[in-house]
This record gives sequence, C-alpha cells and structure tokens, in this order.
Amino acid sequence: MNQLITKLQEHFEEMVIIRRYLHEYPEISHEEVQTPTYIAKFYRELGLEVREHVGGRGVVATLRGARPGKTVALRADFDGLAIQELNEVPYKSKNDGVMHACGHDGHTATLLVLAKALTEMHEHLVGSVVFIHQHAEEVAPGGAKAMIEDGCLEGVDVIFGTHLWAPTPLGEILVRDGAIMAAADRFEIIIQGKGGHGAEPQHSVDAIVVGAHFVTQLQTLISRRIAPLHSAVVTVGHFEAINPFNVIADTVKIQGTVRAFDEVVRQQIKQEIETLLKATCLGMHASYEFDYFDGYPPVINHVQETQYIQNIAGQIPTVEQVTVCPPFMIGEDFGYYMQHVPGTFFFTGAKNPAWETVYPHHHAKFDFDERAMLIAAQVLGAATWSFLTSENNGDVVL
Amino acid sequence: MNQLITKLQEHFEEMVIIRRYLHEYPEISHEEVQTPTYIAKFYRELGLEVREHVGGRGVVATLRGARPGKTVALRADFDGLAIQELNEVPYKSKNDGVMHACGHDGHTATLLVLAKALTEMHEHLVGSVVFIHQHAEEVAPGGAKAMIEDGCLEGVDVIFGTHLWAPTPLGEILVRDGAIMAAADRFEIIIQGKGGHGAEPQHSVDAIVVGAHFVTQLQTLISRRIAPLHSAVVTVGHFEAINPFNVIADTVKIQGTVRAFDEVVRQQIKQEIETLLKATCLGMHASYEFDYFDGYPPVINHVQETQYIQNIAGQIPTVEQVTVCPPFMIGEDFGYYMQHVPGTFFFTGAKNPAWETVYPHHHAKFDFDERAMLIAAQVLGAATWSFLTSENNGDVVL
Amino acid sequence: MNQLITKLQEHFEEMVIIRRYLHEYPEISHEEVQTPTYIAKFYRELGLEVREHVGGRGVVATLRGARPGKTVALRADFDGLAIQELNEVPYKSKNDGVMHACGHDGHTATLLVLAKALTEMHEHLVGSVVFIHQHAEEVAPGGAKAMIEDGCLEGVDVIFGTHLWAPTPLGEILVRDGAIMAAADRFEIIIQGKGGHGAEPQHSVDAIVVGAHFVTQLQTLISRRIAPLHSAVVTVGHFEAINPFNVIADTVKIQGTVRAFDEVVRQQIKQEIETLLKATCLGMHASYEFDYFDGYPPVINHVQETQYIQNIAGQIPTVEQVTVCPPFMIGEDFGYYMQHVPGTFFFTGAKNPAWETVYPHHHAKFDFDERAMLIAAQVLGAATWSFLTSENNGDVVL
Amino acid sequence: MNQLITKLQEHFEEMVIIRRYLHEYPEISHEEVQTPTYIAKFYRELGLEVREHVGGRGVVATLRGARPGKTVALRADFDGLAIQELNEVPYKSKNDGVMHACGHDGHTATLLVLAKALTEMHEHLVGSVVFIHQHAEEVAPGGAKAMIEDGCLEGVDVIFGTHLWAPTPLGEILVRDGAIMAAADRFEIIIQGKGGHGAEPQHSVDAIVVGAHFVTQLQTLISRRIAPLHSAVVTVGHFEAINPFNVIADTVKIQGTVRAFDEVVRQQIKQEIETLLKATCLGMHASYEFDYFDGYPPVINHVQETQYIQNIAGQIPTVEQVTVCPPFMIGEDFGYYMQHVPGTFFFTGAKNPAWETVYPHHHAKFDFDERAMLIAAQVLGAATWSFLTSENNGDVVL
Repeated sequence: MNQLITKLQEHFEEMVIIRRYLHEYPEISHEEVQTPTYIAKFYRELGLEVREHVGGRGVVATLRGARPGKTVALRADFDGLAIQELNEVPYKSKNDGVMHACGHDGHTATLLVLAKALTEMHEHLVGSVVFIHQHAEEVAPGGAKAMIEDGCLEGVDVIFGTHLWAPTPLGEILVRDGAIMAAADRFEIIIQGKGGHGAEPQHSVDAIVVGAHFVTQLQTLISRRIAPLHSAVVTVGHFEAINPFNVIADTVKIQGTVRAFDEVVRQQIKQEIETLLKATCLGMHASYEFDYFDGYPPVINHVQETQYIQNIAGQIPTVEQVTVCPPFMIGEDFGYYMQHVPGTFFFTGAKNPAWETVYPHHHAKFDFDERAMLIAAQVLGAATWSFLTSENNGDVVL
Repeated sequence: MNQLITKLQEHFEEMVIIRRYLHEYPEISHEEVQTPTYIAKFYRELGLEVREHVGGRGVVATLRGARPGKTVALRADFDGLAIQELNEVPYKSKNDGVMHACGHDGHTATLLVLAKALTEMHEHLVGSVVFIHQHAEEVAPGGAKAMIEDGCLEGVDVIFGTHLWAPTPLGEILVRDGAIMAAADRFEIIIQGKGGHGAEPQHSVDAIVVGAHFVTQLQTLISRRIAPLHSAVVTVGHFEAINPFNVIADTVKIQGTVRAFDEVVRQQIKQEIETLLKATCLGMHASYEFDYFDGYPPVINHVQETQYIQNIAGQIPTVEQVTVCPPFMIGEDFGYYMQHVPGTFFFTGAKNPAWETVYPHHHAKFDFDERAMLIAAQVLGAATWSFLTSENNGDVVL
Repeated sequence: MNQLITKLQEHFEEMVIIRRYLHEYPEISHEEVQTPTYIAKFYRELGLEVREHVGGRGVVATLRGARPGKTVALRADFDGLAIQELNEVPYKSKNDGVMHACGHDGHTATLLVLAKALTEMHEHLVGSVVFIHQHAEEVAPGGAKAMIEDGCLEGVDVIFGTHLWAPTPLGEILVRDGAIMAAADRFEIIIQGKGGHGAEPQHSVDAIVVGAHFVTQLQTLISRRIAPLHSAVVTVGHFEAINPFNVIADTVKIQGTVRAFDEVVRQQIKQEIETLLKATCLGMHASYEFDYFDGYPPVINHVQETQYIQNIAGQIPTVEQVTVCPPFMIGEDFGYYMQHVPGTFFFTGAKNPAWETVYPHHHAKFDFDERAMLIAAQVLGAATWSFLTSENNGDVVL
Repeated sequence: MNQLITKLQEHFEEMVIIRRYLHEYPEISHEEVQTPTYIAKFYRELGLEVREHVGGRGVVATLRGARPGKTVALRADFDGLAIQELNEVPYKSKNDGVMHACGHDGHTATLLVLAKALTEMHEHLVGSVVFIHQHAEEVAPGGAKAMIEDGCLEGVDVIFGTHLWAPTPLGEILVRDGAIMAAADRFEIIIQGKGGHGAEPQHSVDAIVVGAHFVTQLQTLISRRIAPLHSAVVTVGHFEAINPFNVIADTVKIQGTVRAFDEVVRQQIKQEIETLLKATCLGMHASYEFDYFDGYPPVINHVQETQYIQNIAGQIPTVEQVTVCPPFMIGEDFGYYMQHVPGTFFFTGAKNPAWETVYPHHHAKFDFDERAMLIAAQVLGAATWSFLTSENNGDVVL
C-alpha cells in the first residue's frame, strides 16, 4: 500500500496534464464523444481490457491481478455542464458554452492515473479492479442506471467513489453512513398566456407576470409548507421568455429542481408545485403544462464500507482530517450502484487554502485545487489495495 | 377624385398580391434589404424618381403632376417583427422567426398601388406627391428621424399616414386631433446575482427569484404610483435566464417598454423603475445594470388636417363610419414628421366581421382583412387628390 | 346678489366658530346624534321649518321667500371619519378615533351661515330654499338615498352642492359637466387559513402569507387587466390579523374600495378580485368569504346647471379662477340627487397658499383654509339668489 | 416508587378537576393574579412552605422529607394565551380572549397533585422537592430567568420538566439529549407610509401594499438564504392596518417570531429581515422602525439526566413507548434552569387515540387527553423518588 501511495505521488504531474486537457474539451451530458474515446485509448495503451459504449457512452476497463480474488469497482464520471466558463486560465474550456464546472475532469484524471499505477503494480495485485468511467452524471436518467443494466457491476464485490469538493479544505475527507446525498428531481413548466402588443395589456395575458408571481409564491413551499426540521430545496434554474421588448409574452418556460431526503416530503413538494401553478394560472387567466421527472434516488452509504473508508483515509499521509459530515442536498446517481453492491461515496476536500473566494460547483468560475486529485487517488487506491490483499479478503477490515 | 376611387377598386387584386408577397419575406427592423429593393424596383417600373437608402434603408419616390402645385407626402412603413408566425396561410412567412405581425406589409402594398393609380392619372394631377417608404418603425430610434434628416420632407406641405387596425371593424376610420399615440420608451436591465448549484441556495444569490420579485413589485407603479386618470403602461416583454434546470441563475436579462402621454408621468416611471430595481437588488444581495432609452415622442395630430381627413373619409363609399377615437397607448415614429410639417395620422379598421377571434397586433397569429388596404388607399388618395386640386390649394378645405 | 355677497363676508367669523365647534365633536357615519341636533337647533333659532330624522339622521330646513317661485335645494354632508386626528390645533377633535378629515364640518358651517344670511334677506326672496343637511356621506349606502326616499327633494327644481377641496388653491372653483366623480364600491374579504404555533408552519395555513400574496397579486388588476385608458382604482384600506407574535394567523380580514367611471370596468374588477382571491386561496390551502357592496353611482353633472354655476362663479369677487377639471376617482352620493332633479356639484379650492405640505383628504393631518367656506357660500348663495330672482326663473340664465 | 405510582392513579380525578378549573380562568402572561393565588393556597393547605411573588408572579413550594438528602426541582408553567377559545366544552374559558391553548393548565394540575401525593408520603421521603410554578412562559423575557435570580434554584441538585404534547399519542414519552427546543426571538416592525384617500394612490404611500410585499419577500429568507440543512422559521403572526375601507393605510404594524438552533443562522436572519425591510421600504417610498428582541436560548438537555429519565420512563406501566425525538422548533424558557443545574426536559404524549383531528398548540380549538397528566406525574414522580432514595443518591442511576 505504501508503494502505491508513493507511486501516485510520482504520477501527480500526469494527473494534472490529463485533467487540464479534459478541462479544455468538456462535453455535455449524453453527448460525450471525444472524452470516452480518450479514456478508452488510455486503457488500451495500458494494455487493459476495455469495453466502450457501456450503457450508452460509458467506458469500463478491468485490471486483473496476478492472483485471483475479490473485485473492487471504482467509479468516475466524465460529463461537463452547459455553462460558459468565465475563468481566465491557460486550460480554459475551448468548447463554447460548455464547462467542467463540477470537477468531473478531475475525477477522470484521478481514476486514469490510479489505474496506471495499479497496472504498474499488477504483479502484486490480488483479485481485480473494475474502472467505471461513467457518462452523464449531471442529467437524469444519468449514465449509472444504464451502465449497471449493461453489466458494469458483474462480479463486483464492493464499489467506492468520491467527489472532489471545492468548499472543503484540501486535506479533509468527508464521510457519512446512511443518506449522504439527496433525491434530485426535475420539473418543467410551460405557462401559456396570450401574447399581444406591449401597450395593450388588457387584450393579453402577460405570461411573464404570471411566471413571476408563480416563482414568488413558490418560495412559500419551503418557508411555510415543509417542516423546518426537514431539509428540502426547490430551485427554478431556467426562466425563459424571449420576446421583443414591446411584445407581451405569450409563453414562459420554467425548469427547476427539487431536493429532499424524505420520500413523503418529496411527494408533497411535487404536488404542491402543481397546486400553486394551477392556482396562479387560474387567477390570471393563463393555462399551463407541468412535467415532473423523478431523478436520482438518495445516495445511501453502507455502514461497514463507510467505516472502512473512514479508517483507511485516516492512514493516508496527505489526509489531515476525516470528518463525519451532514448530508448534502445535491444529487448523484452513485446511489444506483449501491442498490446492487455494498459501497460508499465520500468527498475529497479541494479548496486551496490561499483562495479568498471559492466559487461553488456549477459556477462559471468554479475551480479546485488539483492536489485533491492526488489525495482522492491515494484514498481510493489504498482502499482498493487493502481490500484485495487483506488475508480474509476485506471481511475483517470492514 | 371619383376616378381615383374607382381605379383603386380595380387595382385591389394587385394590392393583395403584393401584400402577400411581402408577407412571405418579412425583414427585421434596421435589417431590411429585399423589401426596399422591391419597392424601389416597383417605382422605377412606374417611371418615377426614386431615391434609395434614404436615412439608411428608406425609399422615397416622387410623382410630379402635369401642373405645378403643392406637395403632399404619404408614408408607409415596411419592417417586420422578430416573431415566429403561427398562422397556417398560403402566404405564411418564409423567414424563420420573422413576421409581418403589425400590418406593415399592408401599408406598403397600399401605398405602392395608390402610387400606381396616381401615376396613371398624372396628367390630371396638380402639384406633387412624395411616397415615403420608411424602414424600422418598430425599433427606436426608428427610420422616420433619419429619413427626415436625409431630406424626405423637403418641399412637402402636408403629410398623411394611416395604420391598418385589426381590432376595429372594416369600414370604420378612427381619427383624433392632438395626442393620438403615446410616447414609447424602452428599458433594459441586467440583474446580477451569484450562480451556483441548485441545491445550495445559501451560497448563491438566485437572480431568477430577484427578477421575479422585481416584476411583481413593478406592477405597483401603475396600480399605486400613477394617478388613475393618467394613462401609462409598463410592460416587461423579455425575461431571460437560460440555465440548466439545476443551476441557480447568475444573471437575468429583462427588457420592457413604457408608454405615457404625459412627460411628467414618463419621467416619474423612468425613475421609479430604477428605484424599485435598486431596492429589490439591495434586499436580496444582487446588483444591477439599468438602461433606459427614450423612444418615439407622442404622435400629435394637427387640428386642421385631422378635420380635413375626417371630412374626406366621410365621403368615401367604402367608409361606413368615421369615429373620433380615444388616444392609443402604442407608439409610432410618425410624430417626427408632424414636428416639421402639418399632418394627421389615422387608423383604418381591418377586422373581418366574420372573425370570432381577433389576434392583437404583434401576436403570432395576427392577420387583417385585406379589404382594409383598399379603404386606406381610397382615403389617402382622395385626401391627396382633393388637397392638390382644390382651387385654393386645400386652404379652404382644411 | 351683491348684498348677499357682502352679508356673507360679514358673517364669515361665525362660519369659522361653527366649523371649529363641529370639528371638535365629529361623529361617525350613521352614528351622528349631536351634530344633527345642533343643526336643527340652529334652524329653529332662525325661525325656519325644520324636519329631523329625515331618512334616518338627516335634517331638512326650508326657507320660504316673500313671494312664491321656484325651489332651490342646497346640500351639505355632516359625518366624520374613524381616524385619530394628528393635528395639534386648538379645535382638535375631542372624540377619540374620530375626525372631520374630509371637510364636512366646513360644508355644514357654510350652509348654516348661508341659510342665516338668506333668512335675513327673506323679504326680498322669491321662491324657496331647501337646506339639506345629510348624514353618512362617507359610508354606503349613505344618507342621500334615504333622505330622497323620505321626501327631501319634494318640490325642488334644482340642486347645488360643493366640496371644499384642499389640493386646489383657494380662489379656484372646479366644474365639469358629465361624470365628475366615480362609482365607489366596497369589498370585504375573510381569508380562512388554519392557525397554529408560530414554529410549526407545516401544520398550519398561514392566513397572513395568503393575504399578503393576495394583495400583491391584486396590483395586477390595474397594471395588466384594465385598459390603460380606463381609469380605475383598487385599494385595500384594511388588513387585520391581530394575533400574538408567535401564533400563525388563522384568519385575515381585508376591506377595500373599487373606483371606476365605466360600468363594464367596474363589473370586470368585481369579478377579477374574486377570481384572484379564489386562486390564491386554492394554491395555499385556504378558503375565503367575499362580499362586494355596490356603492354610490358616479356623480353625473347636468350640462345646463354646470354651465350656469360656471358663469355665476366667474362673477364672484373672491373667485379668482373657474376651471373645467378632469373627473375625480373619489365617490359621493350627491349623484343620487341628480338622478331626480337637475343640478351640479363643484369643488371649491381650499388650499392655503402658504402651506408647504397639503395633507390629502382622509389623512390624519388633513385641514383646509377656512376662507374657502366663504367662497363656497358666496357661489352657492349667488347661484340660489340669481336662479330664484331671475325674471324667467332661471330658464334663460341656465 | 410503586406506591407513588398507585397513589397518583387514585388522585387522577382531582387532577382533572383542578385542570378544568384553571382552564376556565386563564390569565395572560405577566398578568397572572388568580392563578398564583390559587396555587399558593393549595400548598398552604398541604402544609408546605410557600413563597409567592418569586421573580414577579411565580410560586415556589418546598417539601422536606423525613431524612436529609439531595434536592430535586420540578417545574410547571401556568400562563395562558391571548386567544379566544373556540372549543365548546363544559370547562371552556370564561375569560374573553384568553385561553389555556398550550396545556399549562395541565402542567399546573399535574404538579399540584404530584406534590400532594409526595406530601402524603413524606415520612418515607429522603431529601427535598422544590415545586417551581412559573408564570409567563409564553412571552419573553419569561418567568424562569427572574425566578432563578430570585433564588428558586438555591440548593437544587437536579431539575426535571415536561410539556404535555397533543400531537404525540398518549402513552409515548419523547426525550432527546442536547438541543431539544430552539431559540425563539421576537420582532416588531412599523412600516410608515403616507395615508390618504383610497381613490388617490398617487398622493399616498400605501403601507398595506408595502407590508404585503415585505411579507412576500420575507419567504425567501428560509427558501433561499438559509442552508436547507439548517432548521429555521420566520413567522409573521400579527399584521395590523385597521382603517376605514376607503382610506389608504398610513401605517402597518407587523410582529413575528424567529426560531433557530444555530446562533450564526439566528444572527443572519435577524440581519436579513432588516435588510429586506429596508429595501422594500426604499423601493416604495416608505420608512420603517425595526425592533428585534432576543428571546429564550435553546433548551439544551444534559446527557446523563436525559438518559436517566429515558430509563425511568421505560419502567412506568402507563408509558408504552419512549422515543428519542428530533429537536422542536418551538421555544421554552426551561433552558435557563439548565444553565444553572443539571436537568432534562421531555414531552409527554397527549393525543387521544380516538381524535380524528388534533389541533396544534396555540390553536383556538386546542385540547389534550387529560390522562397525559397522570403519565406526566408518574414519570416526574418516579424520577424524583428514585433520585432521592437511591443509596448513592442518584449518582449511579444517572
């Protein structure tokens, strides 16, 4: 294990090179082409078995050790977001309107270089490691479900994954058993008013005014309808009424997301959004369409595997602190994997201590401290190595 | 005059053909190319003097009668709107996202065929007629100002113009002295919040929520700040926050229009919009940019010329009723012409009596009864002919 | 007539004394006791016929001239408002929470002293004068309707009335034929939520939040639903949710007023208020009660009588200017009288030129320049005298 | 201990009688007169030492056992709320506008009868019991602080308290160590607009419209500014603008409460309320006053004492279930006691299983299953007896 830790340290520069290359060429979820090709090529050059187009656009590579044993899966996602990067960095996105604003470039670089290091040590390796490079984590239905259905978990005994996390200081690892990430749903609304000349509101139904009042009233769901002790979020991320300035809006398109840990709360919000929408439209003579898409389930970490990672992480020299964190409202499709095999998902702190401002994930100025990739690789690598080489194959260790 | 009335009746079919052709190829304000070329070609074929690129994209043709006399100007505008047509008609717009949704195709066809008829009668014509085909009426600073500066009113004694008007029944002419149309301004706003992950509102400033509350509060300007006896409009026509559904909006772009007849009210609204915007942003930790563009002045009809048109219109057989109408909140740059020469602007009813639903101007399903073109041509034609041939050159008639 | 003008001038001090006395003892509409008693006593001391309790609490006195002739009615209202006076004046209201904040004290003093002056001149008087002192002008159904039904207009040929008007400078008289004042309706709403502990919104329906959103949405009626060229007002004057700070409101009581000149607009607003209320409650799980009370009709001045007052007023030395004014959004039950006999209602400017701030009518600091009473008395007196003494009894004069 | 349990069972009827008597005569916080007099008389008749007017209106009685030992304090609050009772029960409140809508009548009856039972057993009692009957729990600064400063905790080793809890089924006890109840603050706001006639909004600043928009915007504090994982509440319980329906509101009075467990969140909310208020007033030309009153601190239960109660409660036959509950957003001044001595506060389920509707605490139809008083008395009594008679005086038991 120590050899692996050191080897990763030596390969850190390559991680940075790969990450920056990927950062320059981000691809939208479900539209990834170059990225999976790049990944597959990397594994082929390492000499590993590679399967492409798994569940659509995913890539799965398998490293078999010198001796038979258990199988550990490690997962990294590789899709970008439809955001125009505002960072002025040498590795700024070259794809207009697309950006790696969530760190998936880092996840991918971490896993590729970890795979390289393990491959270099494969003569000492017991069992197998499955490297799951997943497309489309950002947009439900996501890549995880399809990759699982396409067999990526076959023969897998345990799965580990991590998210580089910019708000958390470098050197800190966040773990939590049970629900660590929320259910994340999506809704789409069309408010249909009646367009017309901007000077004659009496002959129109102003869809922007209806939409504005709807968004205003929507705030009361969280403030008044959901118990303060329940955690839930309703965000409208998209409000679109593109007309000439002097034309009353015929239509408004609204899209948003709902987050909750509790299924009853999730269902209540779903219903109350439509109730409010219906009422606002009724009062203002508009009509509407409402679509609600159930997104990812909560990410529920398994207790033993979480305890295992917590212990392993505490032994890595670059890890300064392991914290049991509160749950996060954000969603992830990693939860699907853990519906099939035991596992745990943790966060790897990626905040540069010198930064005064940390831009949140999904922000056009998002970035992370690249040294976090090394730490993530070391924790994942150590967990994998230790699990596989343990005499009783991880059972006691867990 | 009777000969002209009859001749126009005979040419009605040509008006329809021209109008439908123009309707198929609408062009955005300030981007007109084919339309002015078409118009200029038409006049050249009639053998009239034509001046192109007047004040940018305008076309001015002059018809000189057999005997010298006064000069009447007639004006038609020819720009379309950035609206995707939803009518399913044989002459539906073939230019994606652009539509003659205000009837300027009809204005142009009316004036072209009227010019043709007058040209055919030029041997009996006293004085001159100037045909002003104006670009860019829909978007301030508009074409009128530039065409005037480029000399289109030189030597002109009086100007007449009309708007085909779908909400008013076919056969009715609307006139009014004094203010008949409002000042029409434009404003553009950027609300700058702080983007972020849709599940973490506490780290962001949700620009959509700020914008929605701003639009909501904006309604109080008309409901509470302006005297009920003053007529004013504030319309937000454009609200743009295009993000992935799960990203909190960094920025919202808002555009709208203000209409008022009274200068004090206009200034008050301008100030109060910014006051409300500033306050809403202050309360919610956002910042803003605010630009206000003074648009067209009110259209102020001259008393004598309005009385003149009212009398003439009453004598046209196709005109069933001449009504003194209340002022309209909509704007027009015809007012600029009447800052230089006497004149009047009137509305020509264009509502098909069989239509159950009349879509307002600027609506994606807007259309008008094409017979209104004939009526408009007859009123404008009769007014021109009578003015020029009157012994004392219109002075008594007025 | 000149003698009357002079005599009123001499009695001005008494007007002030009476007005200030009445100001100290204002009484709420429909609860007036002392005021009508005071008025009746005044007339009895003048030796006139007095009828009390006319239509409830009204007082009618009749002065018969030496010779028979026509009959002129003059009307003054005498009720106060449920407002706590904030003026610090020697004649400040001594009735807690009640105030003459609309000038009805002045109307009454004006009419009483005018009656006294006419009585002193009764030997020269032709015909009769009916002094109508009306209760309850502020609160529909008002006193006018009941007083008419109780016979106060019997034998009356013409009626005049005025309102002292603080926003208009002293010396100015405002007249207008046709609609001079609006229809004024009242609405009462109860929003029924579900009360509960302030810390547990999820178990309650917060009636204050529902009410606040309703008031917010209500602004869109005027801003978006009513044509900008139509004048209309919707005001919520009363919003009552009196609970301990930590109890979620079970119920909110809302009261307000609607003003419009146009019957279609009035009906539309009535319906749209309920539509919005119903929708807001639906969206937020509340229920409601809605009562709408048709108030006074518009005040429609008769053309001839208005022209008559305009002429007479122009001859009064204290009148500096007679203006044809735009209509007022406020309501008055004087319109009922003019449904039965010809007449006109005008405004008497009452703004002290030295005042920097003029508080509007119904404000807790409202006051008026008392010299306006003299001007009002002179205009009403001259109109009465001239009407009655004119050879052909006013027919030509009108 | 078993003897005490049985004795309380026998005295249950008296608890009901006392509770119903108190329910008929509720008294507002800080205005209690009859209730403390009643309590003191009860203790005097038992022959116990009584101290009245402790910290204002509190009553403290002390029972000394036959042998010296430790001292246990038990606390019950006795104030009512300014709510008009809507229950139709034989013991309905006879004090208009005041109601025991939180169960403090039950707390008092429970403690009085428990004191009676312990007194009857005092020959076997080791150590002392201090019965703290506290006034004014509902309204900060509350009675606890003042009673402590007036010595009510002198010599006390441990304190226990409970709240009858209608939403929880009879037979269930809720315990929690650490924060069990929230900080509860109060705010008072005056929005100063400019009053005027309801038909002339342009001359006024409509304080109701300003207030409605403020309440509307206030919802965004919880929905957008506070992290979803933090629990917080902002409730406006009082919105007062009492005017005639046709007068534009000069002033609105708003009162509300803030709840939070986290001090940083509490401070943020305090600041953001004022920021929003300031901004809303700025945008609408109003001014404001803002007062924020820090209320009770969170109720922080001590770990050992909570474990002790959890164990004891599990042994009481009438207790069917002991649950570790999540924290409650409501406030209590019991936290003050535990800043001085160890202790714990728990909830005693009081929901009648046959009830279909349970009205929340502070509702005008609130009631509880009176058998909960017996259970509360048995748990408190057993905890007291066991603590005092344990050989090593509770140390091991805890």
